[in-house]
Amino acid sequence: MKKKSIAIDMDGVLADTESQYLTYYEKEHGVRLTKAAFHNVPEDEYLPNGSIFKYLYTPGFFRDLSVIEGAIEAVKALQEKYDIYIVSAAMEFPLSLYEKKEWLAEHFPFIHWHNIIFCGDKSIIDTDFMIDDYCKNLDSCKGKPILFTAGHNASITHHERVNNWKEVLELLL
Amino acid sequence: MKKKSIAIDMDGVLADTESQYLTYYEKEHGVRLTKAAFHNVPEDEYLPNGSIFKYLYTPGFFRDLSVIEGAIEAVKALQEKYDIYIVSAAMEFPLSLYEKKEWLAEHFPFIHWHNIIFCGDKSIIDTDFMIDDYCKNLDSCKGKPILFTAGHNASITHHERVNNWKEVLELLL
Repeated sequence: MKKKSIAIDMDGVLADTESQYLTYYEKEHGVRLTKAAFHNVPEDEYLPNGSIFKYLYTPGFFRDLSVIEGAIEAVKALQEKYDIYIVSAAMEFPLSLYEKKEWLAEHFPFIHWHNIIFCGDKSIIDTDFMIDDYCKNLDSCKGKPILFTAGHNASITHHERVNNWKEVLELLL
Repeated sequence: MKKKSIAIDMDGVLADTESQYLTYYEKEHGVRLTKAAFHNVPEDEYLPNGSIFKYLYTPGFFRDLSVIEGAIEAVKALQEKYDIYIVSAAMEFPLSLYEKKEWLAEHFPFIHWHNIIFCGDKSIIDTDFMIDDYCKNLDSCKGKPILFTAGHNASITHHERVNNWKEVLELLL
């Protein structure tokens, strides 16, 4: 029988962009903020003075991201039961394309290149589940949407929410 | 009303990879072959001694491709009636990712980055039509598959075939 499929987002779901913002900000301004500063704030306003976009366009930003806690083990476990696709809206930042591919090869070498998709919008992606931190992706999702908690999505209530990879496994295994 | 959607492949459909193979081969061996040499031959065997893969992995190969005749005008015309997505199986050649994005920006600037997808396999792409030169992509296509003629697919008979962009427009407009 064909396995059910899951589309898994990268930034904010597998890759810890929020921590990287804090690290870059600290490097630039000598002040270490915490992720609490991002609670219920649109992502591009997480930091003042257009810092977020500046960091997103900095070469190396996507290559050096930390992996979100538990993601590697969880994706491995899900792969036993599901067809896993990594679906990242990478097209807005073309320099990120190669970095993201390299990052996946380093941290998720068990994901075959067949199963990696870099796109603009995700509206033509058809999987049974989609795990993402953005409503703009989940709202048009053809399967079951699962919202992965991030600062910017704190007030969203219209999708089932998971707060971490442990909760993803509880939901899907 | 929502427009119907078309997924359009890049290599061999928008971008003239066959001509580029001939150009690279001539540069290396001083012999100009013709596309007739590719008739009914698997693409990776178009040229002897693993030349095809060598060329595909050469930096610049994807950036310098010519546009297939009539493609730009045809895609522009289709865009009036359809949602156009460019869907390229770029993931096998990670170096190509940035080159392909740049190539599209040069030749198809009217395609928004929202509508560009670089993937491995295309099995989770859900559009109403898919134009591609490969059965491996068309066979799992959720909409209507349209086979774009290339040397390697000459003997395929189980998909509707178009030989050029003029025929695409006759079929879809």
